[in-house]
Parts: sequence; structure tokens; C-alpha cells
Amino acid sequence: ACFARGYLPREVRFVGLARTPLDDAAFRVRLADGLKCEEIAADACSLQVGEFLRRCSYCRCEYDSAADWVAVEGRLLALEGGARANRVVYLAVPPFIFGPAARVMAQTGFLSRGDSLTEPWTRLVVEKPFGRDRASYDELQRILGAVCAEEQTFRIDHYLGKEVVQNLLVLRFANTIFEPLWCRAHVSHVHISLSETQGVAGRAGYFDQYGIIRDVMQNHLMQILSLLAMEPPAHLDAEAIRDAKVAVLQKIQPLTLDDLVVGQYGSVASAADSRGYLQEGGVPPDSRTPTYAAAVLRVDTLRWQGVPFLLTAGKGLCHNRTEVRMHFRDEATLFDNAIADLPCGTETNELIIGVQPDEKLALRIVSKTPGVGMKLGTTELDLCFREKYPGQRIADAYENLLLDVVRGDRSLFIRSDELEAAWDIYTPVLQQLESLQIQPWPYAAGSCGPAALDALGMRHGIPDAMVVGQG
Amino acid sequence: ACFARGYLPREVRFVGLARTPLDDAAFRVRLADGLKCEEIAADACSLQVGEFLRRCSYCRCEYDSAADWVAVEGRLLALEGGARANRVVYLAVPPFIFGPAARVMAQTGFLSRGDSLTEPWTRLVVEKPFGRDRASYDELQRILGAVCAEEQTFRIDHYLGKEVVQNLLVLRFANTIFEPLWCRAHVSHVHISLSETQGVAGRAGYFDQYGIIRDVMQNHLMQILSLLAMEPPAHLDAEAIRDAKVAVLQKIQPLTLDDLVVGQYGSVASAADSRGYLQEGGVPPDSRTPTYAAAVLRVDTLRWQGVPFLLTAGKGLCHNRTEVRMHFRDEATLFDNAIADLPCGTETNELIIGVQPDEKLALRIVSKTPGVGMKLGTTELDLCFREKYPGQRIADAYENLLLDVVRGDRSLFIRSDELEAAWDIYTPVLQQLESLQIQPWPYAAGSCGPAALDALGMRHGIPDAMVVGQG
Repeated sequence: ACFARGYLPREVRFVGLARTPLDDAAFRVRLADGLKCEEIAADACSLQVGEFLRRCSYCRCEYDSAADWVAVEGRLLALEGGARANRVVYLAVPPFIFGPAARVMAQTGFLSRGDSLTEPWTRLVVEKPFGRDRASYDELQRILGAVCAEEQTFRIDHYLGKEVVQNLLVLRFANTIFEPLWCRAHVSHVHISLSETQGVAGRAGYFDQYGIIRDVMQNHLMQILSLLAMEPPAHLDAEAIRDAKVAVLQKIQPLTLDDLVVGQYGSVASAADSRGYLQEGGVPPDSRTPTYAAAVLRVDTLRWQGVPFLLTAGKGLCHNRTEVRMHFRDEATLFDNAIADLPCGTETNELIIGVQPDEKLALRIVSKTPGVGMKLGTTELDLCFREKYPGQRIADAYENLLLDVVRGDRSLFIRSDELEAAWDIYTPVLQQLESLQIQPWPYAAGSCGPAALDALGMRHGIPDAMVVGQG
Repeated sequence: ACFARGYLPREVRFVGLARTPLDDAAFRVRLADGLKCEEIAADACSLQVGEFLRRCSYCRCEYDSAADWVAVEGRLLALEGGARANRVVYLAVPPFIFGPAARVMAQTGFLSRGDSLTEPWTRLVVEKPFGRDRASYDELQRILGAVCAEEQTFRIDHYLGKEVVQNLLVLRFANTIFEPLWCRAHVSHVHISLSETQGVAGRAGYFDQYGIIRDVMQNHLMQILSLLAMEPPAHLDAEAIRDAKVAVLQKIQPLTLDDLVVGQYGSVASAADSRGYLQEGGVPPDSRTPTYAAAVLRVDTLRWQGVPFLLTAGKGLCHNRTEVRMHFRDEATLFDNAIADLPCGTETNELIIGVQPDEKLALRIVSKTPGVGMKLGTTELDLCFREKYPGQRIADAYENLLLDVVRGDRSLFIRSDELEAAWDIYTPVLQQLESLQIQPWPYAAGSCGPAALDALGMRHGIPDAMVVGQG
């Protein structure tokens, strides 16, 4: 899509690297299957696709073979017409290959150029998992740092490419009406949730090694949290934004077992096709890997002291939804009697930022229900991006991010110290889960997670944590 | 509609009074023409209509004839089965008849009952115009006070019956997120506007005597202003709410000519069927009656010091719209460069309360425009009552208010001291307009009013007063 829209340089080339033996033609056939055009006529589309495929090549490469990388370099130079061009290397390899591959790349000097602004650059895109804890991350980073400089490194978290997540900065810092409310004086708690109905089918081997906290909480949810909770950055450039994110992450105390609930989905007896986590292919029958986690974090800044941040994430849940709910304090109002009559679990004032499935923004308010007499209800002032911008294509998060790599804008990529700070928050509790052999709470696949969430919520003054947002 | 929904007592009777000779049957025929049922089947509807019409009677009455009122009393007693019942008297008479009619009603004691809670009550509903200035209002009130007590008097302003206007109290005092923003620290100005495309055709005789300020500004717009600007009332009962409204009206300095623009619509040469105000039947050819006014008021409370309240009202304008726009301060933000690129006249943060034609609530914010790169735009988080409550009938303002009369809830009716305070604000300038023979600015019928509004806005730090909200 980026190519079709002319967002990429005219002379761009795409080269696939993998261990499978394939020639260019076979590679293009595989690619062509996945290509489709949006919003253009069929003949224009086939022109575009043809033009794109002509720019695609394939090169077989064992990731830990120095000879193969030298061959890749030769092939690239040939495609570049003999003179090195700017390069983006997207290294999407399993964690166990990462180390060997990076070492060989370092030996061959494959990534070592681009130090000066005038020379052609090489940028490396890497994706999670970024280790399993602070120590393994440090080791990973040591290897990565030997391969290429921090300025060349683009650690991708695709949540940062989503429109509403990018919009968080705008919402907070281009408007003047939110900042006065964005603090402990007015916010009672913040709930960031990521729920998926799917289990781990198909990737159980990977998942069982990592678990839900490492899979989505330590990265996606902490990225959202840092954008929500950070102080205004000094400027809008990448370094200032990431400085502000790191600063807030460093103000969060490490999570403790007391403030954590872990769960694992089980099969539902009454449903014939229901499979529990332990029945998924590739999962050891005695696995204690959590497929669900709820954690309460405290941000020790003047802005947020006393405000719990509840993070929940899980698979095999009752719905697919990623959202932020900033709940404002229920202070005494003139209408308290009428508000007390609202159904149990009704939230009054909330800012809701929907990330998935629909990107939306809503402000929940108390309002008079139209009709005779003064009956109150709650309703949302809302903005659904798809409805408001019907003509506007909402780009895939990866598209946005990969364009930023080409442009060299690192604002939406994770800096190494962000990951260090995020791992520092989770590492102690991850180690305790293993060393103490903590058994996750069981919950039925398709349910809203373990009931222990409610008790955790209550301890932190968050009522109805299970109910809220289930509607 | 109230009758069909069972909101009225079972034994209710409706009696029409006028000077035209009519019998009950002829009266019912006239009524039947205007009746229609909503949302029910045709046979159920004709049952309801029949039931309603059976309860309607007619009584001829010269308003200034004591004998006629005695006859009316006899007729009512007969309908009531000999024992006096609760009565609502809706006195919809032209201003020049009001005095004589009230005097005769006082003489006959027609309205003088209902002092005690146990006796049947009589309530009098009266509607604008409530005089032409403070002195004539005082005289009117003197006459009215002789007829019935303040507790019996229900001064109607149908704007107070509109859902969003009733919702203002809920919005401000049942939510905790608006109050922190609802003050001089965050609000730069407030614009309350009432625009009509229609001229004065059909009621020029009345209008020319009053002009736009008396017709809608001193009443409807000041009612909205007082609900917006008042401090939280001590309680939610009628007296406490009206105490708070009076208190804020008394904190507004009388309007001066410097802070007022008046206009009068003229015909458009290029449009054959365009008629200027002076061409309307019944308007004197040298009339200086304003059909448009823009006024800036200052509310001298701690909350609002320094915040101009711009009120605009007019006929023969470019659109039909009544709305409030609370504009929040454009403070320096991190995104100022991007905001500066927005089209001229773009408002950034505004709370918009739409009263007519659609009742709606919206919060205008700056947001990232979906798509590649960081382009900003403004958009609305909004709530359109008709869309959000599709099944819910939004009652006519008069329906809501007349039900409140029957229930004895005076919250939405104007107390005498509110009118006194409102007249005190406008009386000096209304007298100056006449004594100084101020010529209104001409504006073309169908335009957005006289350009002098922009100059007035600029003097008070309100940029783009003409442009805003025209979109």
C-alpha cells in the first residue's frame, strides 16, 4: 500500500531472505498471493502489482553462515547498481536465532555502515520478544549493540503505529482541556486492557516459553501506559518524547505478587469444541504459564501519586478489545441521589480510548435521559475514526512504522532504556512466579477472566473491575 | 401527547376561553384538526382523540368583562361537579389585554384560591412579553401580583423546556469533569447565539414594538446564560436553582452601547422575492427596530472575571441555529506549529451545546488526522440526542413545561426577581437606542448579519466572531 501510494522512494527494492531455497520467480508467485489493491481499478492494480513484484528479489541465507551474508551483500550491491544505497534490514527471526545471526552479521560488517549523515545508511528493524527479563534483555542488547549503533536500531512495537496511540500525544498536548484533568486530583484510576477471544493455538510453542506478561503486558501495555502517564516532553522530537517515556517508567516501582493476578484458561465442560490451554498442542500438561494477568502499578510522580494503573491482558476471554479507560473521581455532586439510582457498575465520568477492534475516543458523561422528569443516565460523547473519516484509509500499524524507518523518525520506536525500565518493573515478579511455582487461577475459555481480578481491584479502590467495559 | 401517555390526571378537563362565539362541538372540530397520534395504531388513536375531545369544552369570554368571568367560574364549577378542583389557567393574551384582564380577574377573585396546601389550587401560566423594560415589567408585576401569589405564578420561557437546556444543570453538576474547566482559568469566551432565517412576516405588528433584544435576548438567551454562568445551587429545588440564577444575573453590569451592535435586514437586490424588514407589511417605513443584536456582557464573579459572554440573535440570517459555544483558552501547546497550519477561523477546544435545530452536545478537540505523518485537524466528540436515543421521543418544550405546572415544579419557570435583574441589564441601552435614535446596521436578508460584529468581537478579544459556527 505504501508503494502504491508513492510514499516510498522510486528506486526502492525489496529482497527476501530465508533458509528455504527459492528463486525470484517462485518468491514473486508467493508474494503475489498476498497482494491486493484498495480503491483502484483492476487494470491499474495489476500494473501496480507488476511494478512492485519486479522490484522484489529473493536470496537464500542461513542466518548463522558468514559466507551466506557475504553472498547477500554481493547480491544487494548488484541490485543497487554497484554503489551502496540506503538499506532497511527487517530482522524477523525467532529469539534463538537472533544471537547467532547478529554475531555473524557483526563479523561480516553487514550492518556497520551509516555512521555519518552523508553516507548511505543501514537501519535495522527488530521486533519482540526483547528477551525474557532484564538479564536476557541486557544480553540481547549487548549482541545487538555490537552489530549496530542505537541510532540505526528501530525496535518496533506495532501498538505504537496505531492511530489512536499516535493520537495520544496530540490529545494530551495539542488540546488545552485535557491537561487540567490529567492528574491525581481528578483521575481515580486508569485501566488499560487487552483482551483476546483466541487462545494460543498455532503458537503455543512460543507462547508457553513467554506467557502473557512478556507477550503483551511488558511491551504493548507499558508503551500505552508511558504515553498516558508521562510528563509533557521538552520538545516533540524523538529523543525528547522517549526521554519523557523513560522518566515515567523509572518512576514505577517493580510489580509485586500482591498486586498481580495470573490466570490460565481451561476448557468448558458443556462446550464440545472448547479447549483449555493445557489441551493446546505443544503445551506441557503441567504448564503454569499464565494466559491472563492483571496487575496494579503505581506511578510515583506528583501527577499520579495515589492513582492505581490497572493493566489486564488475556487470551481465551469473552471479547476482543484493547482499550484505555481513564476513570475520573466520583466526587459528591448535587445529583448524587439520582446517580445512586443508576444500575450497579455504571461508570459516570470516563475517557475511553479504544485501540481495537475500532479506534475510537469517547468521553462518558452523566446526562438527563430525554423525556418527562429528571431521570439520569450515562452516555458517550464519542468519535469513531472510521465513521468520522469515512474516506480516509486507516493505515495498518506496521505500514506507518515502516515508513517512519525509511524517513528516519524514531519517535515511535522503543529506545533501549525504555525496555530496561519496563523489564525492571516485571523481572522480580516473573522470577517469583517461576521460583515459587505460582499456580495461575483457572478461568473458563470464553469467560471474562478469573474472579480474583475483583479482589485485586477492591484492594486498590477500583470497584467493579470485572464488570466495567464488558458491555 | 401528555394526555395519551397518561401523564395527566384521569379526570382532567380542558376549557377554551376566547372572544369568538363558538359552541363545544365547533370548538372540538377546530381542535381535532390539529390532533395527531404518534406511534400508535389508527383505531387506538381515534379512541384517544375521542376521549380527549370529550374532555374539551369552550366558553366565550370578553377578557375585561367581570360578568363573563363569573360565568366562566359557573361553567367550570359545573364541569367539576360542583366542587372546585385544581386548575391551571394559561393566559395567552396580547400585552395590551393583559392589564385589563388581570384587573377583572382580581375583582372577581377568579384566581385567588389555593393559598393552602390542602385546598384545591389554581395556577396561572403567563408568557412573554414580560413588559418592555424594567418600569413596564414592574407595572405588569404589580397587576399580576394583585391577581395571584408568586407561588401560583408560572412564567414560561419555552427554552427552559428544551432537553439540552434542562441538561445543562446535569452536565455541570452531575459530572465531575466539567467543573474544573468551567471558569476563567480555562474559558476564553462564551458565545450564545440564536439565528433564524425567517423574517418577521406575519407578526411584524408585534415585533416592531419590541425588537430582537426584547423578543429573544433579554429572555431566552439570558436564561441560557444564567444556567451556564451560575454558581452551584445549594440544593436542586426550584428556589435554590432560581436563587443561583438571580445571583449571577445581578453580577452582570448593565449593557452599554459600546458593547452592542444592532442591525436590521434589508432586501437583496439580486433576489426577486427578497424582502427587507422595512418592506414587511405593518412595519413603518422609518422603523429603527433592530432585527439583529450582538452584545458582550461581563459577569463579575470570581469564576468569570475577564471572560466575555457574546450574545447574538437575529432574524433574516443565513441559517436556523441556536447554540452555545464555550471556547477554551488557546494556550501555548507543544503542537503550536501544527495548529498554526489549521485553516483560518478553526476553533480548537470548544464545548458546543446545540439547542436548535438538533439538540446536541459536542466537544471540539484537536486530533491527528488519520493517515501517514503527523497532520492535525479538529474533530468533535459528540452526542446527538436524536441519534443516541432513537426510540425515545423528545418532547416538545411546552409539553415538558405544562406538565411541570400540573406537578407544581417551578424549577424551570422564571421568578420575578430573575426578570427584574435581566431587565436591569438591558433597560438603559434599550432607552438609549430610542432616545439617541440609533440607526441599526443594515445587513442583507440571508446573510450572516452585520460585519460590525467582527469589530465588536475584536474589541473583546474574540477573533473570528462572524466565521465561527457558520460552517
